[in-house]
Amino acid sequence: MNAAVPPLPHFDDILNAAARIAPHARVTPLLRSRSLDDIAGCSLHFKCENLQRSGAFKFRGACNAVFALDDAAVSRGIVTQSSGNHGAALALASRLRGVPATVVVPEGAPAIKLAAIAAQGARIERCAPTMAARTAATDTLVERTGAHLVHPFDDRDVIAGQGTVALELLREAPDLDVLLAPVGGGGLLSGTSLAAKTLRPGITVYGAEPAGAADAHASLREGRCITDMTARTVCDGLRGHLAPRTLALLQRHVDGILLVDDDAVAAAMRLLWERLKLVVEPSGAIGLAAVLADRERFAGRQVGIVLSGGNVDLDQLPWQAQA
Amino acid sequence: MNAAVPPLPHFDDILNAAARIAPHARVTPLLRSRSLDDIAGCSLHFKCENLQRSGAFKFRGACNAVFALDDAAVSRGIVTQSSGNHGAALALASRLRGVPATVVVPEGAPAIKLAAIAAQGARIERCAPTMAARTAATDTLVERTGAHLVHPFDDRDVIAGQGTVALELLREAPDLDVLLAPVGGGGLLSGTSLAAKTLRPGITVYGAEPAGAADAHASLREGRCITDMTARTVCDGLRGHLAPRTLALLQRHVDGILLVDDDAVAAAMRLLWERLKLVVEPSGAIGLAAVLADRERFAGRQVGIVLSGGNVDLDQLPWQAQA
Repeated sequence: MNAAVPPLPHFDDILNAAARIAPHARVTPLLRSRSLDDIAGCSLHFKCENLQRSGAFKFRGACNAVFALDDAAVSRGIVTQSSGNHGAALALASRLRGVPATVVVPEGAPAIKLAAIAAQGARIERCAPTMAARTAATDTLVERTGAHLVHPFDDRDVIAGQGTVALELLREAPDLDVLLAPVGGGGLLSGTSLAAKTLRPGITVYGAEPAGAADAHASLREGRCITDMTARTVCDGLRGHLAPRTLALLQRHVDGILLVDDDAVAAAMRLLWERLKLVVEPSGAIGLAAVLADRERFAGRQVGIVLSGGNVDLDQLPWQAQA
Repeated sequence: MNAAVPPLPHFDDILNAAARIAPHARVTPLLRSRSLDDIAGCSLHFKCENLQRSGAFKFRGACNAVFALDDAAVSRGIVTQSSGNHGAALALASRLRGVPATVVVPEGAPAIKLAAIAAQGARIERCAPTMAARTAATDTLVERTGAHLVHPFDDRDVIAGQGTVALELLREAPDLDVLLAPVGGGGLLSGTSLAAKTLRPGITVYGAEPAGAADAHASLREGRCITDMTARTVCDGLRGHLAPRTLALLQRHVDGILLVDDDAVAAAMRLLWERLKLVVEPSGAIGLAAVLADRERFAGRQVGIVLSGGNVDLDQLPWQAQA
């Protein structure tokens, strides 16, 4: 089965990504909160990727992928498929590179994320809200225009870019016992787990996944990519499925996937807004939710949590009564 | 008239304050946003005091005042009057010093700020919602208990502590043309203007004040403390009046007070949440609102803005329809 796995990124690719994105990406702050430490019963280190450009860690991978391409490869523009943060990140990276971008967006994607893609000057092309329709629309575009596809997570350069989150985190907090990152398609978790286990082999790395979109958990258990589950979760950024490449990296470097229900995510999100004073989207709050749902596992430990994004519609907060 | 002004802090007091609070206070991040720069037409540097301990710059002054006192002075505890952030900051500083604190709170103070005071272990004493009642209740407490009063802004050590905001800001952004800070009682503005004008004499310093609580603006125009205006503003942290001490410092170091209406404050607050991904309270957003209301004044300049606090009731956001 491993024969079918496309080339995996190595630690050196993450170091190269860090150098490549340095002129463009932010080194995001690592914040702490004594009151959240008290609530959690452990020492929390929050990597604030909600403060990354375009409002999510996705800019790291998109920027690395777009700037890794040679001029010929980008001459006909960049294409991707995304219902959210990767689309805006790719649009920004393309604008910085000076090449046109098109983002295939499924019907039903959050309006605020569509607006962010458009604000970066990318063209939006709609498709039906299924993975098959997204892939078909993207393939058609690539064929028709000759544009270069940068997949949201099934891409070696994208994964290497996401891994730079862990480089910065462990540089500032070298004594971490545990690293927690959200998992959707697995780009962030595979990149950060590769970096973290290389820099600090004894660290424990968990993915945090919505209980209503538990395909990564199932995929690791069964040893194959489960792609036919229907996602039901408030975490709009975590509805993707693993690809063989991200599954292979998770199998090597991740110690477990922790499942969290949506109510716990909403409560953790509110706690981050109240205590850390940070606007974090549901997908970004799931790491803290995973800790609070299983305090004993983390008791007394040094825990790094990736707050992956902050793009949220302020008129539709999960704790507001539905109008 | 100057004969009646109590002792003013000097720049050295601010340097001493920085050293005194260093073990306890956070050096807060200075954040930037290209999209907000584009909207404003100038270069904005946001000093994130919403990320300070207790969620506001107030901890700097309270911490400096409480730790400047000798053991005898604090032996019977600390007292203050506050409807909000100073109360929580003083309560936290007192807890760190290991002395009991009592906060006199007017009826009608925001519930979330009361909860923050109680969470730090301070005793709360209620009084009628007038400045006279607050002062009377505080005086009575001091007489009865022998506790030491730390005024929210009319206090040399408190002002010196607030001034440390500008030390950090100018250390990280030494080329600022303009500094903007909110003004209520004037503790933050007087301390930061003293520090900024000492470090960088050519800098322009503005206070930003709600149009519905424009007593500082009127006081500077008339050259005396106006204390009989009724405040009507969403900026609950900016309803106080200047004291002779803060007025004297503002007369020396501040170039003007910019008035901003509440709608502009709410819009700026939402923009900070959306673009900077920061939870900022209305009082903390008024600096950005002042820039956006008067773009020509700031065009092309390097502008430092103090985001003074982030303590806000997430169920009562100013852009939500009233229930």
